[in-house]
Amino acid sequence: MSEEMKIPYKIYLSEDEIPRQWYNVRADMKNKPAPLLNPATLKPMTFDDLRPVFCDELIKQELDDTTPYIDIPDEVMDFYRMYRPAPLVRAYFLEKALGTPAKIYYKFEGNNTSGSHKLNSAIVQAYYAKKQGLKGVTTETGAGQWGTALSMASAYFGIDCKVYMVKVSYEQKPFRREVMRTYGASVTPSPSMDTEIGRKINAEHPGTTGSLGCAISEAVEVATKTEGYRYVLGSVLNQVLLHQTVIGLEAKAALDKYGVKPDIIIGCAGGGSNLGGLISPFMGEKLRGEADYRIIAVEPASCPSLTRGKFAYDFCDTGMVCPLAKMYTLGSNFIPSANHAGGLRYHGMSPILSQLYDDGLMEARSVEQTSVFEAAQQFARVEGILPAPESSHAIRAAIDEALKCKETGEEKTILFGLTGTGYFDMVAYQKFNDGVMMDYIPTDAELQKSFDTLPKINL
Amino acid sequence: MSEEMKIPYKIYLSEDEIPRQWYNVRADMKNKPAPLLNPATLKPMTFDDLRPVFCDELIKQELDDTTPYIDIPDEVMDFYRMYRPAPLVRAYFLEKALGTPAKIYYKFEGNNTSGSHKLNSAIVQAYYAKKQGLKGVTTETGAGQWGTALSMASAYFGIDCKVYMVKVSYEQKPFRREVMRTYGASVTPSPSMDTEIGRKINAEHPGTTGSLGCAISEAVEVATKTEGYRYVLGSVLNQVLLHQTVIGLEAKAALDKYGVKPDIIIGCAGGGSNLGGLISPFMGEKLRGEADYRIIAVEPASCPSLTRGKFAYDFCDTGMVCPLAKMYTLGSNFIPSANHAGGLRYHGMSPILSQLYDDGLMEARSVEQTSVFEAAQQFARVEGILPAPESSHAIRAAIDEALKCKETGEEKTILFGLTGTGYFDMVAYQKFNDGVMMDYIPTDAELQKSFDTLPKINL
Repeated sequence: MSEEMKIPYKIYLSEDEIPRQWYNVRADMKNKPAPLLNPATLKPMTFDDLRPVFCDELIKQELDDTTPYIDIPDEVMDFYRMYRPAPLVRAYFLEKALGTPAKIYYKFEGNNTSGSHKLNSAIVQAYYAKKQGLKGVTTETGAGQWGTALSMASAYFGIDCKVYMVKVSYEQKPFRREVMRTYGASVTPSPSMDTEIGRKINAEHPGTTGSLGCAISEAVEVATKTEGYRYVLGSVLNQVLLHQTVIGLEAKAALDKYGVKPDIIIGCAGGGSNLGGLISPFMGEKLRGEADYRIIAVEPASCPSLTRGKFAYDFCDTGMVCPLAKMYTLGSNFIPSANHAGGLRYHGMSPILSQLYDDGLMEARSVEQTSVFEAAQQFARVEGILPAPESSHAIRAAIDEALKCKETGEEKTILFGLTGTGYFDMVAYQKFNDGVMMDYIPTDAELQKSFDTLPKINL
Repeated sequence: MSEEMKIPYKIYLSEDEIPRQWYNVRADMKNKPAPLLNPATLKPMTFDDLRPVFCDELIKQELDDTTPYIDIPDEVMDFYRMYRPAPLVRAYFLEKALGTPAKIYYKFEGNNTSGSHKLNSAIVQAYYAKKQGLKGVTTETGAGQWGTALSMASAYFGIDCKVYMVKVSYEQKPFRREVMRTYGASVTPSPSMDTEIGRKINAEHPGTTGSLGCAISEAVEVATKTEGYRYVLGSVLNQVLLHQTVIGLEAKAALDKYGVKPDIIIGCAGGGSNLGGLISPFMGEKLRGEADYRIIAVEPASCPSLTRGKFAYDFCDTGMVCPLAKMYTLGSNFIPSANHAGGLRYHGMSPILSQLYDDGLMEARSVEQTSVFEAAQQFARVEGILPAPESSHAIRAAIDEALKCKETGEEKTILFGLTGTGYFDMVAYQKFNDGVMMDYIPTDAELQKSFDTLPKINL
């Protein structure tokens, strides 16, 4: 038995070892992510500009690009202990199945009822809303993981939670909806007729099945027009990436315990919350010149914001009521093909990750969904976890890298983020099992049409 | 901060501490469970009688009521490390919400993709089938947890898996079916037209939506008629309870670490696999006079085999092709009302548990499903886990006992089994959320009608 074999299948930190501070990677970035702009004035959003939309404490976190470590409130630590630390798993079974000399680890964030890492930020945002004396929060949800997480967090702190759920998901995922209702949230299909923007979108696009950008617009409108409510978002924002660093900090602490240093770090990327959270502490070392890592963002070929998007200021939502963010974007009107099953549908990418990518500090690749589900199935069969389609993008890339090692004989160490489980994604699995899943790659012309809608500030 | 507070939210054993032997409670029982009878001869089933149906090694375990500890094969230990040890959770949040002085612990078996404890036995049965050189296994599934578990186990060992799924579940739970298919199993709605017994039942009961007893008959028929196949069962049998003792052994080891001794141990009871597994090591101490525990089996009021059944020899299946077992039973023709959503639908109860109950070594109580879902919702909101309806029967009783402690001021320690998650049971949750869930208690006349079908051997 080699030294290596002493590493257990699952590395659990003790509850005392859950990080007590988040790490703010912006503090170590030379090129800071560009500020959010006020869509009316095109000037950087100030604390006061943002107060009608976000909780005060969260705005401070959003704007703070200098403080490297930020304390996790005790009340959030209590909740984290409900489902954290999350295990870091050595994928012995997958390594064996692939016959690779690579050593594969994954940080598994799916062992909670929301089914994903989203709970890490939801509980923080619900806590600050409660602390500020608010009655409730509004949000959007697409695949439903974020809405579920926020419902759980809101129930815990006893505040109201209004979720605008992309209509196509609302109809195709009734069970997600029921989980949210079980936690006491109200769930409204978007675009609805409850909001100005919803009525406008319904009038302009009769029969539309909605989009994330559209649901965001509705949720923001309701928050700003309802006394005692604020809007919260599950990805993209700096604050969300900050909260999600608990993933990377735990993963790094677990690896450090066994003296393991990853060569390659892989995460799926939609809005960037998981990837940003996973890589932050490693990226921090890279930015400070203390270590080097290959970091790979994996996105769907049908929604390729990093690999085919523009690095430009764009609206975060379809209704154009939100601030503008400088990010890799496909244009706020971009909606992935309806046959795209695998989540990660947002048109843009976290400004932090966009900047890091533009600075050459990380790579990106896109993968097609049938190959993603092939990886998902292979993983499920040997590792015993049915992965979320989103997470399976990272699995695909991890397997590909491990197979390269098999060719070259290199014993690289690969770490990837397994963000969640696929129990509410069985319609997509069924398509795959039935052999009727299709791939889709937008044409250059389609993307150009969407780029043409980018706001003029880019010109 | 009191001594008590040093107990973490979740107690994880290390992988080295996963039990290496199962505990066979029959070895310590004065009154052994009655033997299975051959339905043709009414004589005790011999090893040779059982060989056409079960794997050889499993028959040995089934018939062995004297060996107290049985080694867990290395290959099964490897697989156990994929998802075990399972956490023992201190329900601090629930205690606080209830305002009870009771200390509540639960052993959580839902952190694996099959979503329940069923995997603990599935992997063993698949292993012995593989070891015996078989091509595959057949089984039945109702709610789908067992079928999913066996699909995962079969995929791991590369053997075929044919699941007969109660038709009503097949239709109402398409996502369960897809998980099984993702693991490569074939899933057939039962009663089917593939088997003699299926055709007979379909002819006699046109439009029937099936039952567990009927699916068992089909699976047994296919196993015995197909070269290289055997039948496997997820509950009731002695061998299954043996494998499930890994639950109780881990729970006891985790409690022992902190010097905690439960006063009350609670588990839901359908066929008895979870309850038997959880309580066995504690019951062993009780049988040997080393300790005393109050042990409570909780069953649905709509399928009350322990609280209202007869202790008698009965058929294990509807088709009457299986051996007869002496157990608490409602009669093999009993089918719970269609409005019963909460699992635990089997007409009988494990012979081991039946004997222990008859000997006054454990209690039983029945609960109605709306009160079960109230407990489920309360638990989900404070403990962050959406429980399976089955598991929620135990939650209901645990909450009730904790509330009694609140009245009396007693600081009792309660341990219950949280067998799994409810992600595939959202139709039932929806009924509860919509306020249209109904309760159902069979009348004495209905039960009598079913008792009248008990085989004459009881007379």
